[in-house]
Amino acid sequence: MKTRYLTAACLVSMATVAIADNKVPPAPNGIELPAGYKNWRVIAVSHREDNKTLRTILGNDTAVAAARSGDTNPWPDGSILAKLVWKDAAHDKWAKATVPGQFVHAEFMIKDAASYTETGGWGFARWKGLEQTPHGKDASFVMECYNCHLPVKDNDYVFTHPASIP
Amino acid sequence: MKTRYLTAACLVSMATVAIADNKVPPAPNGIELPAGYKNWRVIAVSHREDNKTLRTILGNDTAVAAARSGDTNPWPDGSILAKLVWKDAAHDKWAKATVPGQFVHAEFMIKDAASYTETGGWGFARWKGLEQTPHGKDASFVMECYNCHLPVKDNDYVFTHPASIP
Repeated sequence: MKTRYLTAACLVSMATVAIADNKVPPAPNGIELPAGYKNWRVIAVSHREDNKTLRTILGNDTAVAAARSGDTNPWPDGSILAKLVWKDAAHDKWAKATVPGQFVHAEFMIKDAASYTETGGWGFARWKGLEQTPHGKDASFVMECYNCHLPVKDNDYVFTHPASIP
Repeated sequence: MKTRYLTAACLVSMATVAIADNKVPPAPNGIELPAGYKNWRVIAVSHREDNKTLRTILGNDTAVAAARSGDTNPWPDGSILAKLVWKDAAHDKWAKATVPGQFVHAEFMIKDAASYTETGGWGFARWKGLEQTPHGKDASFVMECYNCHLPVKDNDYVFTHPASIP
């Protein structure tokens, strides 16, 4: 089996190197959709039972390095967190398992303490649905994000606690 | 922001190239812990409300390519699926959010139709806890895995349906 691990080893880095998907419009605050985010590594998962959604939280290399070293309060500049959200669905063969249904949106937090001084050092952006429609009518939408994250101000405005992974 | 995407682009592939972690004992059927699995990309997530666990399902490059092209029945030889499992915990600042608590185990399915003829073409293995203790007293433990997967025989013995990710 061992040789198989090697055969496609460069695919991930090639995908990560791509800079931007210009087909997707930027968020109203000018943030562009981070390219290659679906190739990022997993930091955590969650299930919100209030709005019936499943989530995975991925990070770019800077964020994953911080998560694995426990250096996340504050997260270092350059960290990007991606939260992918799906509506709950029931597994067709395991009724007590909740699995991803319709894709809801991808949300991003981009850490740049000098740039995003009014929102805790984080740039926020969200693209909705498989169509990746930017969220927000104008740049002020970020206050909606920021205000929701105020309860976790002491965790550098981040709800996610990195999961233990051996 | 764009230059940041480039700086650490090679880290993922370097981690994937590593062959094996020899500190972890093999499973009783001889399967070795796939190296670098925690750098693999996400295929799905799930929440099992019967045993109160959250999961992420990751795949090696072969599995992710199959998942993204919809070519998973059967999954191609060389596919490896990794399921990381945590006990449910409540988020300290969002009571209706279930988040990863104690790490339970990492489970693997390795597709090799010619090698694993008695278990649907899949090699099964599991390592328990952060200590990564191999599961099973002897090689027959795989029948426990296989029998549990029989209800999804028509889905190539795999419970996971790849999540939609734009």
